[in-house]
Amino acid sequence: MTDTRQKMPKAISPLPIGSTIGILGGGQLGRMLAMAAANLGMKTHIYCPEPGSPAFDVSLFHTVASYDDMQALAQFARNVDVVTYEFENVPAETARRISGITRLAPGEKPLRIAQDRLLEKQFLQSIDIPIAPHRPVTDISDFQAALQAIGTPCVLKTARLGYDGKGQRIVKNLKNAETAFGELAGVELVLEAFIPFEKEISIVIARDEAGNCVVFEPSENVHKNHILATASVPAAINKHTFDMAISNATKIANALNYVGVLAVEYFVTGTGDTQQLLVNEIAPRVHNSGHWSQDVCPVDQFGQHIRAICNWPLGDTKRLADVVMRNLIGDEINTFTNNLQPNEHPHIYGKSEPRKGRKMGHINAIFPKSAQTP
Amino acid sequence: MTDTRQKMPKAISPLPIGSTIGILGGGQLGRMLAMAAANLGMKTHIYCPEPGSPAFDVSLFHTVASYDDMQALAQFARNVDVVTYEFENVPAETARRISGITRLAPGEKPLRIAQDRLLEKQFLQSIDIPIAPHRPVTDISDFQAALQAIGTPCVLKTARLGYDGKGQRIVKNLKNAETAFGELAGVELVLEAFIPFEKEISIVIARDEAGNCVVFEPSENVHKNHILATASVPAAINKHTFDMAISNATKIANALNYVGVLAVEYFVTGTGDTQQLLVNEIAPRVHNSGHWSQDVCPVDQFGQHIRAICNWPLGDTKRLADVVMRNLIGDEINTFTNNLQPNEHPHIYGKSEPRKGRKMGHINAIFPKSAQTP
Repeated sequence: MTDTRQKMPKAISPLPIGSTIGILGGGQLGRMLAMAAANLGMKTHIYCPEPGSPAFDVSLFHTVASYDDMQALAQFARNVDVVTYEFENVPAETARRISGITRLAPGEKPLRIAQDRLLEKQFLQSIDIPIAPHRPVTDISDFQAALQAIGTPCVLKTARLGYDGKGQRIVKNLKNAETAFGELAGVELVLEAFIPFEKEISIVIARDEAGNCVVFEPSENVHKNHILATASVPAAINKHTFDMAISNATKIANALNYVGVLAVEYFVTGTGDTQQLLVNEIAPRVHNSGHWSQDVCPVDQFGQHIRAICNWPLGDTKRLADVVMRNLIGDEINTFTNNLQPNEHPHIYGKSEPRKGRKMGHINAIFPKSAQTP
Repeated sequence: MTDTRQKMPKAISPLPIGSTIGILGGGQLGRMLAMAAANLGMKTHIYCPEPGSPAFDVSLFHTVASYDDMQALAQFARNVDVVTYEFENVPAETARRISGITRLAPGEKPLRIAQDRLLEKQFLQSIDIPIAPHRPVTDISDFQAALQAIGTPCVLKTARLGYDGKGQRIVKNLKNAETAFGELAGVELVLEAFIPFEKEISIVIARDEAGNCVVFEPSENVHKNHILATASVPAAINKHTFDMAISNATKIANALNYVGVLAVEYFVTGTGDTQQLLVNEIAPRVHNSGHWSQDVCPVDQFGQHIRAICNWPLGDTKRLADVVMRNLIGDEINTFTNNLQPNEHPHIYGKSEPRKGRKMGHINAIFPKSAQTP
């Protein structure tokens, strides 16, 4: 007798309470993910090369090993029920090793794309998401041609491993172009048009295995010294921009067949009815610009990410109040309690040394809800 | 030369970030306190006799030892910056040992009073807080006199170590009085009038070292089998009852010179304008009936308790939405995900065995804010 039934796609059932979630990375995002997981009755196992990492404080298990220690990775993967990550620069080999043993969510594809600005831009263009004009740059002749095509001002960026303004040079004119190229050359680069944006906004979106998407409202972001300073909600944007921010993020999440929380950063150009949106970059993880959700949404970005990767139903993200998130950078950690207001809610990362430019915590300041969502 | 300055009261400065908070008890309340502490950048050390306690999952340090192990207690106390507790039955000797070495918050007095129904009632009467008629009962002749004075129905309770209906017998008539006494006799007892209450409400209040008090709104509580089943906010009570619930709780917190979060449970008798309030009992700790605050208040009862005992400014407790908290008891933990709604937010305690009557988690169901606070 022959079994003529079709092979059914492997059904993904909800991860049971008491399961262990593996997290690559032990920084503040891993720490807040670990607490969100505990809140849903899950245990967590942090994998991180640095001893004494912030996430260890709130996690039952941890492994201190490098991301290329294939043996430690395999042991870690065998001891957990699903693996997620707090940063997009997880080496491809690390992701592959884990995927071979247990479920990795989000998967390898979003990692690969988010790690490489060129791949990311190709991907976004392939699904008709507007982005800034750009050219890949491998050598000086590419660079000169790209400069010609894009004009100044423009921004030269390394294709890989950039964050918080690292690996970027603004090219104001042809005079400083050579210096910028000289400083970054030797790796794959990309030259982007400088976008004279009115504001920056971002969207945090969650998508589950079944393809359901739930978004948090867009936040309006202000950077100082290339580091996020504040994220405010509601963002002062018109309804068209609001809707486009959501629909583009949804399109991206679907195209990646994404599972978990994804952040999409946008430049808003023009004002009033002429507002337009360009995607700046995507991050396949919980994001600093989504921290505002912690104190004003019943389910915040951390809880939502855990639900998504555990195949639990996604939660309601409706905002209950207005909020301004501000980061505590470096020494600010030492003084913020002096003038803490009753409507201010600190979230502190447990890092011992307040180095310059280091994110030490953030404060959500809560205000009565002023405006309906557009 | 003689120093003629008055001795200044010892100023209590805010506990710095990175300090360690010791918590006596490793159950769900200790677990949620530990997460709230981590969120403010504190480390935690759980002291609990049971290995594998729920709070260990989210705490950096733990000591497994009994509450009468004076050596372990001393070592624990020396390694932390402040000690708090998740349950009121901390032995007096344990509290004294810790207080001799480090700061205990709340202190020994609230523990002593909350551990003994008779002391508690004396205390409440001494500050003119209305309570049910009652009599202390040591022997059968006390009991008979008390029955005579109070009448039936009434409730016989052990003065100490009762919770979730344990150590209580309802005396419906003289016939079952003897059985009830026979079952509980041998320890200090108290006979209370049975209050035919319309509803039960409770208040969670926080008080800091300087005497500032911040309350959470009263919740309306429903018990099943003597265990809290639901707590709903807003409570359906009139303005007078609302105000009295708050002012009595404030009076109690002040009279105890309390530092931390305190719960006060009330019986509401009568309806409409004739509503009256009697204190049923107080709990010198975070409380099951305050769990609703987690998803609808920027600062919840756990964060507020940590702020209070760390001498941080108390936070804003304004409720942003309506909410019904329901406990997951025993086997309910195995099925609740089957029909989890987007507006439902589970908090799961990480206990391995769902024994009958055991609190395994709770769910906060969130609804749009329907009513202004009276």
